Amino acid sequence: MKAVPMVEFWRGGLLESLHHGHAVVCDATGAIVEAWGDADAVIFPRSSCKMLQALPLVESGAADALGVGPSRLALSCASHQAAAVHTDLVTRWLGDLGLGDDDLRCGPQMPRDAEAMKEVLCKGESPCRIHNNCSGKHSGFLTLTRHLRAGPDYHLVDHPVQVAVRQAFEEVTGVASPGYGIDGCSAPNFATTVHGLARAMAFYAAAGDRSDTRSRAAARLVAAMTAFPELVAGEGRACTNLMRAMGGKVAVKTGAEAVFVAILPEQRMGIALKILDGAERASEAAIVALLIRLDALDPGHPVVKRYLTGPLTNYAGLAVGERRIAPGFAD
Amino acid sequence: MKAVPMVEFWRGGLLESLHHGHAVVCDATGAIVEAWGDADAVIFPRSSCKMLQALPLVESGAADALGVGPSRLALSCASHQAAAVHTDLVTRWLGDLGLGDDDLRCGPQMPRDAEAMKEVLCKGESPCRIHNNCSGKHSGFLTLTRHLRAGPDYHLVDHPVQVAVRQAFEEVTGVASPGYGIDGCSAPNFATTVHGLARAMAFYAAAGDRSDTRSRAAARLVAAMTAFPELVAGEGRACTNLMRAMGGKVAVKTGAEAVFVAILPEQRMGIALKILDGAERASEAAIVALLIRLDALDPGHPVVKRYLTGPLTNYAGLAVGERRIAPGFAD
Repeated sequence: MKAVPMVEFWRGGLLESLHHGHAVVCDATGAIVEAWGDADAVIFPRSSCKMLQALPLVESGAADALGVGPSRLALSCASHQAAAVHTDLVTRWLGDLGLGDDDLRCGPQMPRDAEAMKEVLCKGESPCRIHNNCSGKHSGFLTLTRHLRAGPDYHLVDHPVQVAVRQAFEEVTGVASPGYGIDGCSAPNFATTVHGLARAMAFYAAAGDRSDTRSRAAARLVAAMTAFPELVAGEGRACTNLMRAMGGKVAVKTGAEAVFVAILPEQRMGIALKILDGAERASEAAIVALLIRLDALDPGHPVVKRYLTGPLTNYAGLAVGERRIAPGFAD
Repeated sequence: MKAVPMVEFWRGGLLESLHHGHAVVCDATGAIVEAWGDADAVIFPRSSCKMLQALPLVESGAADALGVGPSRLALSCASHQAAAVHTDLVTRWLGDLGLGDDDLRCGPQMPRDAEAMKEVLCKGESPCRIHNNCSGKHSGFLTLTRHLRAGPDYHLVDHPVQVAVRQAFEEVTGVASPGYGIDGCSAPNFATTVHGLARAMAFYAAAGDRSDTRSRAAARLVAAMTAFPELVAGEGRACTNLMRAMGGKVAVKTGAEAVFVAILPEQRMGIALKILDGAERASEAAIVALLIRLDALDPGHPVVKRYLTGPLTNYAGLAVGERRIAPGFAD
């Protein structure tokens, strides 16, 4: 089945642009509660699966053995914007391992945080690997590498860290990964289906009901994400704003190319969506619509205006357009 | 008819994202030579129609009466990135009219040019209206306003300037505009069909064959755009790079929400395309494919690698993916 219309952009009373996508809401048994588009569409989760990539870090005992507490666990699931709060924590984490910027295998990235970017730019400096939005995830990989006494190239697909990530990823998604791509941070990103990604999110949502090692690890990662929403992304970012708006009851995570997932412990449900064209503006609007539909987000909360119902303004501040959920999707 | 697949983004041997769109190649009679998707789809041309919005400036005699030469005509058709070369020219143009930043009706916009942005940011200043990518177009509007002895709010849809723009726009597109929206720069942007926009570009392409006032005005605007490609956009930008790559034989212009047009005088043809989801990365790849198809662009030129055939690299500089033209589109 094809992707279906999900998010419309209107201007002057006319439809200007349209985004199609796939979305699945899954329960704790792995069954589909609702789906739009093709639940079996193969996607790259990109950064939306960082809590899966962090699972071996916790379930192996590496996190406990090397003093990785909740804030560092949140950073290991983060696509941070390299504000001082993020880079300071990563620097300390690497320092505790006796490591530094050169030990990271992600490339350097200009900070997305306005103040941090201004500092790098105006000092005429170049961004470091620590500024990479994935540097927390990579610090987690380095922590597991140390625990496993493995080699320094933890980003290679046959390295023990990535072998463990792939196994955990395939087990919680319930899908043998059809392949992998190299992500923006140079780590392997394993492909799965939209259903598989939603199933994994539902596994995390219901993890608190179970006492096995993996479930306890998953529950700790969810608790870390919801306890430190500002570390998972940063001030002004959708993941941070949405987790705050839901009072820490729901964990959400975005991924490049317009993937968005949500973990809803109260409902014991997981959501995964992919906008076919990769537009973040549409994945943000779509996840907001689904969170409202599942009674996880108050439709009257200001973040709903910001990502879905509020006017689109131009450089002069005039309201020039609006977003609408396409008929038939989450309406 | 629906939009058709046009540009694919691949990673790890799997299709990651897909862009649909509409495209029309039109000849000087207004007939469709080739089309993909829905030629009658209604779109907002956005900045891709600046050479249409500049037509009254020239055909009214305002440009000649007020000393607007080729470089300023190029700027009137530009979505510039506010490099010094752009803002200096706009400042001088406004100065010659005895006007300044406050007389522009576009809002302030942070320069897209890296050096100019760095200067604004690092001096702790705020961007001005002159930095708006449309400030050249607005300087043209102000020039026509002066010539018509009209009021200062030239951006309002019932102002003589916009009335003249709408008439010219509807006549060269051959379509009664079904409506308008307010653009990023606060000027009205008149809707038309993809066919109508392509027909207008073909009118410009064959303008040199005719001697009427409008055709001579259109030919002057095409000559100005191709003579000053760096003014139409800026260093590193697709419009500038593509016009340079084609040796000034073809004028191209991008518009927000992934519209792209081309004026091909040698072929007496015009192209208009709209990517349904508004992604610039896809409109750039699609226009490159169509320019190659019409023998206007050398497939071996480096810009083809940059916008279509070259690898997609990550923060570490690794090749992680590729763009492909979707089967059935311009292949």
